[in-house]
Amino acid sequence: MAVVGFVDRTSDIYNAAAIVHNKEVVHVYHKMYLPNYSVFDEMRYFQAGDKSQVYKLGDTLVGVNICEDIWYPDGPSRTQALAGAEVIVNINASPYHIGKADFRERMISTRASDSSVIIAYLNMVGGQDELVFDGHSLIFDECGNLLFRGKQFDEELIIIDLNLDAVFMRRLHDPRRRQEVFALREETVSIVPVHDRVMQKKVKYNFNPSLPCSEMEEVYSALVLGTRDYVLKNGFKNVVIGLSGGIDSSLVATLAVDALGKERVKGLFMPSPYTSGESREDVFMLAENLGIEVSEIPIDDIFQSYLKALSAFFKDLSPNVAEENIQARIRGNLLMAMSNKFGWLVLTTGNKSEMSVGYATLYGDMAGGFAIIKDVPKTIVYKLSKLRNEKAGKDLIPERVLWKEPSAELRPEQKDTDTLPAYEVLDPILKAYIEEDRSFDEIINLGCEVECTERVIDMIDRSEYKRRQSPPGIKITPRAFGRDRRFPITNKYRSY
Amino acid sequence: MAVVGFVDRTSDIYNAAAIVHNKEVVHVYHKMYLPNYSVFDEMRYFQAGDKSQVYKLGDTLVGVNICEDIWYPDGPSRTQALAGAEVIVNINASPYHIGKADFRERMISTRASDSSVIIAYLNMVGGQDELVFDGHSLIFDECGNLLFRGKQFDEELIIIDLNLDAVFMRRLHDPRRRQEVFALREETVSIVPVHDRVMQKKVKYNFNPSLPCSEMEEVYSALVLGTRDYVLKNGFKNVVIGLSGGIDSSLVATLAVDALGKERVKGLFMPSPYTSGESREDVFMLAENLGIEVSEIPIDDIFQSYLKALSAFFKDLSPNVAEENIQARIRGNLLMAMSNKFGWLVLTTGNKSEMSVGYATLYGDMAGGFAIIKDVPKTIVYKLSKLRNEKAGKDLIPERVLWKEPSAELRPEQKDTDTLPAYEVLDPILKAYIEEDRSFDEIINLGCEVECTERVIDMIDRSEYKRRQSPPGIKITPRAFGRDRRFPITNKYRSY
Repeated sequence: MAVVGFVDRTSDIYNAAAIVHNKEVVHVYHKMYLPNYSVFDEMRYFQAGDKSQVYKLGDTLVGVNICEDIWYPDGPSRTQALAGAEVIVNINASPYHIGKADFRERMISTRASDSSVIIAYLNMVGGQDELVFDGHSLIFDECGNLLFRGKQFDEELIIIDLNLDAVFMRRLHDPRRRQEVFALREETVSIVPVHDRVMQKKVKYNFNPSLPCSEMEEVYSALVLGTRDYVLKNGFKNVVIGLSGGIDSSLVATLAVDALGKERVKGLFMPSPYTSGESREDVFMLAENLGIEVSEIPIDDIFQSYLKALSAFFKDLSPNVAEENIQARIRGNLLMAMSNKFGWLVLTTGNKSEMSVGYATLYGDMAGGFAIIKDVPKTIVYKLSKLRNEKAGKDLIPERVLWKEPSAELRPEQKDTDTLPAYEVLDPILKAYIEEDRSFDEIINLGCEVECTERVIDMIDRSEYKRRQSPPGIKITPRAFGRDRRFPITNKYRSY
Repeated sequence: MAVVGFVDRTSDIYNAAAIVHNKEVVHVYHKMYLPNYSVFDEMRYFQAGDKSQVYKLGDTLVGVNICEDIWYPDGPSRTQALAGAEVIVNINASPYHIGKADFRERMISTRASDSSVIIAYLNMVGGQDELVFDGHSLIFDECGNLLFRGKQFDEELIIIDLNLDAVFMRRLHDPRRRQEVFALREETVSIVPVHDRVMQKKVKYNFNPSLPCSEMEEVYSALVLGTRDYVLKNGFKNVVIGLSGGIDSSLVATLAVDALGKERVKGLFMPSPYTSGESREDVFMLAENLGIEVSEIPIDDIFQSYLKALSAFFKDLSPNVAEENIQARIRGNLLMAMSNKFGWLVLTTGNKSEMSVGYATLYGDMAGGFAIIKDVPKTIVYKLSKLRNEKAGKDLIPERVLWKEPSAELRPEQKDTDTLPAYEVLDPILKAYIEEDRSFDEIINLGCEVECTERVIDMIDRSEYKRRQSPPGIKITPRAFGRDRRFPITNKYRSY
């Protein structure tokens, strides 16, 4: 028996699983619970199924259901088990975010032990626009013990023998089993003719359920897979990255090399008079460490031609963000020119902290096809960079990049902290407000400073217009921007 | 009694109407039907109400419900009327699109006559990001006759006497009334103490239910209101528009003047060597006709500085879209520089036909805060321009702009038809594919040419990445881009 996910069009459209046996579709299950939160819009498109079944394979009873179905304690996994199913096959396209793996394992283990049923939780692997499906398929036995944990971020064929007699025994001995309502007994569909049950020996599992990789290793792998799949599935061969010598572009280049190989990653260094000597050194050091090609196009002549063209209008006014943004947009235009000429995909380098408060230039450093660290807060950008250097056993990202003070280098002596609080102060406020929907008062109660919190919330609210025009990026937190957080631009509501 | 819409937070969050009497909230109604299609996401946020009531005002029975509720024939308007309500107050935030007004009137008239009830359909007025709420409130009597039609796109206070005895009489004489199920009788809430019903004389209505304005007048008004509210509600004083001498930017400037007044609209003309003498004349003629200020910044010097900077990379390659886009992006950068320096909002000038097939430069002509004709197909751009000139009784938009062949003027002798089918051929394919979800075969059956249709569908599918980064614009068709059409970028599905 094979279970294959598809869209079933009958009198309506269903998110469906085909039960295939002997090259024929012998039955179709319709997903009963349709997620309509976070990145999901299933209620827009699908009708919900209204019944589940139990399939008879020889004398083994199997229940099939889909993704969201298993998150409901009284959903089809429960009713199928009560109707006798010994194994539940739950197929998934469940997107990754930090902390989800743990939560999933805990929940599925409980579902299995609650209903004394073996659960095979099977998840897709790969990137699709902003989402990364992380694999990490799981099999739990009837007591909620982990029998198998599949690879994260990689496909895998799992073959496993299951001890069905153990399910029978556990049910006999489960004190709560006798109280269960059997009125929900599901329709039983015979897939394979009955044969005698072969008395099974106690199956030995060689599996070592060691802990999965660390949270930061997970995030790094998600970003690599998300980048690789976006680039390749959209038919690009090469990517180009504007390298500034800062940590964001350094991490993006490193991730791109891990995703695509060094030959496919092109660096472009576009210095201005405000670019420091250290930045130049760090760009070329990084390129050398990664083994990637880097080209240089100074932007000052172009910048001067803009200033000349605008001089009649700007003459009596002191330089401000207008002049800063012109530089960032010249760089955006040059990257896009290379993209248009050579077919390279531009990877942008903005992180979530910047995207949150609008510390980025629309059509400037925000210009590009895919924003791979768009959902990565700056403090995690540092952690990932350190992790990657540790894994390499050397400074792949030059060590100075990890400790020098962040700067956009768009005016003399500029520092991020001229405009923003320190990232260690900023990131917790962003997490509370954006990911956790906390109110101003709650954020203050978390220990954040009043004036700073007001200013940060203001910046977040006022920069929605920028985010609306930002390229897609890879979701790694419980709430990313984009479809995950739908917010108006025109909005007089203030939370303090 | 006043009815006021609000969000009610109790044990969950409800889309609610407060029934206010004597400065007190005497009751709260929770919306029962939550739209989750098109631009609506209500199921993400709200819990649905599960009962409706009838309010007693003296001896008059009134039912209150919200927006989507009235679109269901068996919804609360029906059950409230069956329980005795003589008047239904239905409050709305119902966004405009072409053809909706007619459909609404027909439907509400039928609801009124179906249940022999007076219906007051009350709709919000104003722009909110991509949506325009068009007012156009309606009152129908118990026979489905229109008693009053409120202004479109403008606020209005309506005071009307209603003939409640006519409701009683119609119910007595309605042959189907006796068959009706009264089991659904709603809870009755007393709002105002009972008083004797004053025997009403036959009320005379002075209202002349003349036809509302034409479809194109409606669209024009929607664009004006949507532009005005986006600009003013977001705190901008002035807008700036890149004027090319083409019809799109000419219409955008005209709409902006109608929305904001000529003092608040700034034109920027940015010629290149490919800009024709006619374009220059048409820009200045338009500015004179509209009475707006126009500045000129030639882009050739800046363009040459880019070519010089890129010469080492582009030297052996013939010019292509890369050089064209550089010019468009220089213009985008100049417009944004003016925006950053003077606080002007950039209105972009792309129409729906271009947005559909990706015939626009990301970060170039697509750069700006609000894309007011983004949902207007090119053929309607012409109609609106002609309409506005007719209304003005003179050529506000220079006559030549209306008949000269469209060109982006990014290379010598360029015409839109070098790349695209004629707009009269293109627009029907776009409408069928984008607004009506028609399949390739259906579109061919509509009489569209096979090869052309394939090419157009390909262009639509492949330019999703551009639309994802486009500024918001005003929805005027049944399906706009943005939240109304949620489409993946990474997508191998092909419809032919």
